[in-house]
Amino acid sequence: MLVADLVGVAVFAASGASAGVAKRLDLFGVIFVGFVAALGGGILRDLVIGAVPPLAFEDWRYATVAAVVATATFWLHPQLARLRRTVLVLDAAGLALFTVTGTLKALDAGVPPVGACLIGMLVGIGGGLGRDLLTGEIPVVLRREIYAVAALMGAVAVVALERLGLHHDLVLLAPAVLIFGIRLLALRRRWSAPLAAPDAR
Amino acid sequence: MLVADLVGVAVFAASGASAGVAKRLDLFGVIFVGFVAALGGGILRDLVIGAVPPLAFEDWRYATVAAVVATATFWLHPQLARLRRTVLVLDAAGLALFTVTGTLKALDAGVPPVGACLIGMLVGIGGGLGRDLLTGEIPVVLRREIYAVAALMGAVAVVALERLGLHHDLVLLAPAVLIFGIRLLALRRRWSAPLAAPDAR
Amino acid sequence: MLVADLVGVAVFAASGASAGVAKRLDLFGVIFVGFVAALGGGILRDLVIGAVPPLAFEDWRYATVAAVVATATFWLHPQLARLRRTVLVLDAAGLALFTVTGTLKALDAGVPPVGACLIGMLVGIGGGLGRDLLTGEIPVVLRREIYAVAALMGAVAVVALERLGLHHDLVLLAPAVLIFGIRLLALRRRWSAPLAAPDAR
Repeated sequence: MLVADLVGVAVFAASGASAGVAKRLDLFGVIFVGFVAALGGGILRDLVIGAVPPLAFEDWRYATVAAVVATATFWLHPQLARLRRTVLVLDAAGLALFTVTGTLKALDAGVPPVGACLIGMLVGIGGGLGRDLLTGEIPVVLRREIYAVAALMGAVAVVALERLGLHHDLVLLAPAVLIFGIRLLALRRRWSAPLAAPDAR
Repeated sequence: MLVADLVGVAVFAASGASAGVAKRLDLFGVIFVGFVAALGGGILRDLVIGAVPPLAFEDWRYATVAAVVATATFWLHPQLARLRRTVLVLDAAGLALFTVTGTLKALDAGVPPVGACLIGMLVGIGGGLGRDLLTGEIPVVLRREIYAVAALMGAVAVVALERLGLHHDLVLLAPAVLIFGIRLLALRRRWSAPLAAPDAR
Repeated sequence: MLVADLVGVAVFAASGASAGVAKRLDLFGVIFVGFVAALGGGILRDLVIGAVPPLAFEDWRYATVAAVVATATFWLHPQLARLRRTVLVLDAAGLALFTVTGTLKALDAGVPPVGACLIGMLVGIGGGLGRDLLTGEIPVVLRREIYAVAALMGAVAVVALERLGLHHDLVLLAPAVLIFGIRLLALRRRWSAPLAAPDAR
């Protein structure tokens, strides 16, 4: 589970750092946005379930992974641009991992089902929200494709499977695969959520 | 008090969802901004007074009301646009309810008077702040009319009446009416706060 | 230490209020941005170390200093504009004070070294981040000059000196002078952090 978490941290650090490079931030700005993208969702999670200090400050490996990956992204970003497909797949994996572990941690902390689903979804999308707010964008997860809703469906699956008393590994794995699968399908088929009817005014 | 709270949630969910529709967010983005507007202030309040997990995650009715109202706003927004006056009145009611209950909860949690007023004001305006940050706007409560200051005056009234040992209902009701009244008067008379003198440079 | 903290609050309140004036916010908007700039970093610090309610709500002097300075800035801002150099020096002092006290408070609360450094840096730069987010700017600390990294170096120095068991005053003072000095040098010599190579696309 730690490994899964750190993979998610690395992926989101790369995504945040890429956004920082695109906005012409300096080295430290790039690293900072990488940090927020990688650790922001988990910090929010720990604040709302009362686990202080948050794991991102408690365990040095989180910050280290985020810093190393963000720094590497700063230097290697032209190569990363060519790897755009890979980054999107990794981002889907990160979304899946963060949402599933976030939901489970909330349940373990005694949060009721509906709240645990919301927290899980927030952990999954929170880093991306922070990244976009810092770089002055309307958060992309609110605008494009099936993203937050894939996380929410996975979070609901975690709660359902956990209620059924299934084995812990399955409770983690099956919803993670679900989120990952929905997300990849949405990317491949260019699924997107409906827009509201244009205003008659 | 629960009913009052849920009315506030519904009003702010509608206001957040409307902002999301105006920014051409997709269905899930609209719902998410509605959530943040409806529940953000209360979550912030619970974090600063140490009531974790926040009520919005603890009690499923909050999230459900926010989700239903935001979804309805997504489909019905052209009709809502014609109800603009109604929405502004409801928004004033939401501001009043959230500020008053927020101040009282902070006092009950042992926060001193000045801090409780600030927290109350933050609960009242916090959802709107979150909504505007997510949609890439400078928060409207900082730019226009008498808004935050109406909340602050109501919060001060809560603390004063509570100190006088008045009946709980009166401590809630009178300041709520005060905020609501100031806000409506400010809208009707187009009151606004002063701007700084233009820069001489 | 309280005096040092309140000086930092005053400086950041002035910086936040100036940003609000520049964005043509009204009086209350200006005060609010001043508040966020002055108290935001400390509130974040107290939330992550579990010290609720945060000091900014617990001790009325914080809010009072922030409100008085922000209001004064609203009326006096043309004079302040001519004092730009002074404001930058005071801002460097505020960064130094907040980072050092933030790191030490995190250590005292039992946060491990790496986490304490991150928290200290966040306290130092957090107010400026909040100010820029509220006024719709990409945070200037991410874009320009040596700022966050000066804070981080000071935070590391605090942890190192504290580990050496040095006297409390020295643990505070030496890193504060370090941050202040780096920041002033960076301003005078126009040091800035590297940008990533432009994209080949």
